[in-house]
Amino acid sequence: MKGVDLADRAGRQIRVGLDVGGTKIDAVAVDPAGEILGRLRRPTGWGEDAVLENIALAVGTLAEQVGLSASDIRSVGVGIPGLVDADSGRVLHAVNLGVDSLDLAVRAERALGVPFRVENDVKAAALGAAALRGVSGSMAYLNLGTGVAAGIVMDGRIWRGARGTAGEVGHISVDPNGRLCGCGQRGCIETFCGGGALAKAWGRPGSLPVRDILDAADTGDSEAVALRDDLYRGAAAAVRVLVLSADVETVIIGGGLTSLGERLEQGIRHALLAGAEASPFMRSLHLDERIELLPAGSPAAAFGAALVGAAITEKESVSHG
Amino acid sequence: MKGVDLADRAGRQIRVGLDVGGTKIDAVAVDPAGEILGRLRRPTGWGEDAVLENIALAVGTLAEQVGLSASDIRSVGVGIPGLVDADSGRVLHAVNLGVDSLDLAVRAERALGVPFRVENDVKAAALGAAALRGVSGSMAYLNLGTGVAAGIVMDGRIWRGARGTAGEVGHISVDPNGRLCGCGQRGCIETFCGGGALAKAWGRPGSLPVRDILDAADTGDSEAVALRDDLYRGAAAAVRVLVLSADVETVIIGGGLTSLGERLEQGIRHALLAGAEASPFMRSLHLDERIELLPAGSPAAAFGAALVGAAITEKESVSHG
Repeated sequence: MKGVDLADRAGRQIRVGLDVGGTKIDAVAVDPAGEILGRLRRPTGWGEDAVLENIALAVGTLAEQVGLSASDIRSVGVGIPGLVDADSGRVLHAVNLGVDSLDLAVRAERALGVPFRVENDVKAAALGAAALRGVSGSMAYLNLGTGVAAGIVMDGRIWRGARGTAGEVGHISVDPNGRLCGCGQRGCIETFCGGGALAKAWGRPGSLPVRDILDAADTGDSEAVALRDDLYRGAAAAVRVLVLSADVETVIIGGGLTSLGERLEQGIRHALLAGAEASPFMRSLHLDERIELLPAGSPAAAFGAALVGAAITEKESVSHG
Repeated sequence: MKGVDLADRAGRQIRVGLDVGGTKIDAVAVDPAGEILGRLRRPTGWGEDAVLENIALAVGTLAEQVGLSASDIRSVGVGIPGLVDADSGRVLHAVNLGVDSLDLAVRAERALGVPFRVENDVKAAALGAAALRGVSGSMAYLNLGTGVAAGIVMDGRIWRGARGTAGEVGHISVDPNGRLCGCGQRGCIETFCGGGALAKAWGRPGSLPVRDILDAADTGDSEAVALRDDLYRGAAAAVRVLVLSADVETVIIGGGLTSLGERLEQGIRHALLAGAEASPFMRSLHLDERIELLPAGSPAAAFGAALVGAAITEKESVSHG
């Protein structure tokens, strides 16, 4: 791992990273060379106590699977939705997890005897994506999931901004006459390319509504075609916003919608090309060449969480025992 | 001047800064304590040779006015529109100046015997605004002039981004059915709040068309009211984009349209409040409290150019004689 030194004294050499999602926890154990030694997924549960318990179980089960004892684990990093105070390790308003307020780092450390560090899930995933793809300069990680948000990484560091809204491109309105967003505004980027908004607009049953939309669009269903266009155009708008404000070199796209694979990547690429057709300025940016899709099932988010944990300083780590 | 050390050995203590605009050059001489010793304005001219000659005349006349000889000037910083290669000091595509390609730093140094450094005008102004307003964290400088662009300053340094498009929020489309932009896209932020686009949409004679629009709107002219709303809503959209992507703490608004003063500031503030009315998330950002208007005639842009020149290292300065 370029730029990340996970090496350590004997014992406590392993970094664990957890990506805590709305339905499941993705956990990886990372050795000092940055290699993933083991990975598992288990349900997240609902509410403060259940989430905490399942985090502890994920760490314990993963350690057992890899053949580690607690004393081999140097840190646990957690990426989790909601408003995260990275200094205190407290999580607020993780509504998809039923968590209103959880003193996660303190309680998890008490339970497991290992130093914890907590970060917003998209920011952690951004760090992981930058590391896994070997990006050394600037990049944004655009997460297309139920909602839409981005994390920005500059020279290997998460860019926090002034008040925690860096990369919140999902709630930039790009159409005053667009659909109403959950945030109360109209035409937010998230209303175009968020899985939740698309499923709601589609309104038909099915466990993978965005995949259903693409399949129906392929058969010519006009409503599905319109929503498919929204998806691609919304994601293209997010890419444009990230480049025309933060001017990142690359936009790496991750999140649940990446399970759509090639169709999604080509769709966004075509939308970027179509948007640049009439504009020499936009063409000069070559945005279609500056996006990358993470492979479905990429461990980037959990790996990034492990890197977040690895940023715990020696002093903090010692004081935690 | 916090964070900027202009002090120097005897002689060559003065930094000159030039803001080269479409019609005039604004020039300041700054002493080692960051005080502005003198200021003058003179016409820019048209085309490479005229612009270069007027830059040299601005420096010479300012020096004379303040009572300096060339040997008192340590550096000249120039903020100029167009695509600027800050390393070589070359300017490309400054269309408003009739400059296609100008090797500005090299030619000006040869003419005056003083080290020159060149920067994009909005980026230089951003640096100057941050310094004059004493902003230590993150801020964006939103320039509302003929066109619309922003510069981002983090911890006192211009944020360059990967390919020179950081802060180019003027060409983010916020309405797919909006007016056609000079860049070829529709509904760009610049089509709402750029002085050029507003003047074109207004289409009536007058030397200060945006002021005419506001005056006519005050009398109830419906076309003027619509354009006035566009101005305020477009600027509010730019503020939202800057906070929801780069998450700057403050947005300082400058540029020619600041001659509209209080009306402009209150209008943008009301548009931000109106946009947040239906959205608890947007209300939580308190955007209306995070904007500031530079006073009309502020020397921020020229002062920022002087800071750009001050960034010439000792080594470069010595090598220039």
